[in-house]
Amino acid sequence: MAELVNVAVDAMGGDNAPEEVVRGAVEAVSEDKRVKVFLVGRETVLKEELSRYTYDSDRLEIVHASEVIETGEPPVMAIRTKKDSSIVKCMNMVKEGACDAMVSAGSTGAVLVGGQVIVGRIRGVERPPLAPIIPNINGVSLLLDCGANVDARPSQLLQFAKMGSIYMESVIGVKNPKVGLVNIGVEEEKGNALTKETYPLLQNCPEINFIGNVEARDIPLGGADVLVCEAFAGNIVLKMLEGVSSALVTKIKAGMMTSLRSKIGALLVKPALKSTLKDFSTEAYGGAPLLGLNGLVVKTHGSSKAIEIRHSILQCIAFKEQKINEKIREQIVLGD
Amino acid sequence: MAELVNVAVDAMGGDNAPEEVVRGAVEAVSEDKRVKVFLVGRETVLKEELSRYTYDSDRLEIVHASEVIETGEPPVMAIRTKKDSSIVKCMNMVKEGACDAMVSAGSTGAVLVGGQVIVGRIRGVERPPLAPIIPNINGVSLLLDCGANVDARPSQLLQFAKMGSIYMESVIGVKNPKVGLVNIGVEEEKGNALTKETYPLLQNCPEINFIGNVEARDIPLGGADVLVCEAFAGNIVLKMLEGVSSALVTKIKAGMMTSLRSKIGALLVKPALKSTLKDFSTEAYGGAPLLGLNGLVVKTHGSSKAIEIRHSILQCIAFKEQKINEKIREQIVLGD
Repeated sequence: MAELVNVAVDAMGGDNAPEEVVRGAVEAVSEDKRVKVFLVGRETVLKEELSRYTYDSDRLEIVHASEVIETGEPPVMAIRTKKDSSIVKCMNMVKEGACDAMVSAGSTGAVLVGGQVIVGRIRGVERPPLAPIIPNINGVSLLLDCGANVDARPSQLLQFAKMGSIYMESVIGVKNPKVGLVNIGVEEEKGNALTKETYPLLQNCPEINFIGNVEARDIPLGGADVLVCEAFAGNIVLKMLEGVSSALVTKIKAGMMTSLRSKIGALLVKPALKSTLKDFSTEAYGGAPLLGLNGLVVKTHGSSKAIEIRHSILQCIAFKEQKINEKIREQIVLGD
Repeated sequence: MAELVNVAVDAMGGDNAPEEVVRGAVEAVSEDKRVKVFLVGRETVLKEELSRYTYDSDRLEIVHASEVIETGEPPVMAIRTKKDSSIVKCMNMVKEGACDAMVSAGSTGAVLVGGQVIVGRIRGVERPPLAPIIPNINGVSLLLDCGANVDARPSQLLQFAKMGSIYMESVIGVKNPKVGLVNIGVEEEKGNALTKETYPLLQNCPEINFIGNVEARDIPLGGADVLVCEAFAGNIVLKMLEGVSSALVTKIKAGMMTSLRSKIGALLVKPALKSTLKDFSTEAYGGAPLLGLNGLVVKTHGSSKAIEIRHSILQCIAFKEQKINEKIREQIVLGD
């Protein structure tokens, strides 16, 4: 039997913890025998939650952690002082090699800070990008960086492009993924100082399939598989996607309630509409990996339900089996 | 009788010129007796177009311009060499005081460059922002800057906030408009170097109603009336709005065609859906003013139809009557 993929799961993180996190973990170990989950959090609470399910107890263990980092806490301080928190414990299990990966729906700030200071960067990686999968009209794209560190350097964007390409190809299964630089025009000379300096670096990088600048208008239309930008821009892209979708759906629903005719129509289109919107939701694609660390750290949406937790756990299998970090090490060391 | 508002209209600019531009101009002078339009472009073509309509010829004149600046041309060179182009001629009419304002659906680059080098900035204005009106779930917001000059300074963002507030209050009619700084988090300390330095400037400015940082997610939900950012971020906001709306509508329409049930429903909801989407289109609100110039320059979407041209011409009336530029002069001189 092949080696198990060990995943530490922050059972206390997110709006729906621990119930949905525990359920997602149970579903993951039931679905795939290659994975073992360590549920990290308050033992008594987790024991009670787990008592509702039947599962393979060889592949689902509780690891007690007495503290919880709340989303509002200043991340650096929280990581430093709450040594027995579920996030810090998960991070330490990855750092020490007991786990290959960790998943958390908790404080984004604490996950980002902990990833860097506890798990640590792969030697040569300048900055680990947070890389959510976002939906587009034809499938999905990887958007990086959406982390907390803004004002990136061109050399960091080059690394994002390499790491993103590896992830998109090996984990998501997109062959020779198209890499686009998020910019305000398609011509090479467009943009700010950062994009102008980054463009030739991407163009001259043999490891990636660079297709040039991508305007924000083309992102939802599937303009590129890997979208490279610094975190301020990435955050705006991600949150506009969420905000516009949500506003438009609210408008459309309200619009359909304005006449008897459209009310009847609304009843008829409801199932089709629901499935379309599910396809186009940023929450439907598991978690966002924090790439370039000594182990995999996956941040899922704070509002994650069991399905996202399950997907996030299962994506760790491909990450390990496809030797993503070995590939990143090779490319970053070779390329720099 | 009060003085007429004289508007130069680039009759050759945009995808639908001259037909839709001429029609929009005829509609504008028919709708409001306070406005006089100078249609600038090739005389023979425009005469022929105008021959289809009846209109008050005292308030609609043709001004001949032999050249046209195409959208693909490098703007600086085009403005310099094509002295007899419709855009340059419109700009000169504003500069010389023959017109109060100009409207163009032509090359954005040429309009931005020409606005600065021909019409010229109001003394004290560091950078004239391009300020489109964007739809939100409850109404509209003014987003500035969406121009071509990126990497703005904090003092420029402060000026954008002041000019945007004046425009939103006096032209759009929003009392005491809420000003938000586009950022990646709501807390004061969030963001990049630019937003961190800009925040206290906005907070300490008595002329504006600053409500703090606004995350991109809240922009489509109507988080602020005036959204302040530098042009790279503004461009992403604007184009994500267009791109997500377009992608989502395409998805929803395709989704409704998947079953007989939803096809029938689609027929019933079609009118309601159409009116909702029209409300939420970035093209439904006339043009984007380039603020802070010695006269008003309005850039409308390249795909503008007569209705947008008409709206863009009519918004020049409020701009003049409300003495926007006098107000900007006062605030910029007083405030700096």
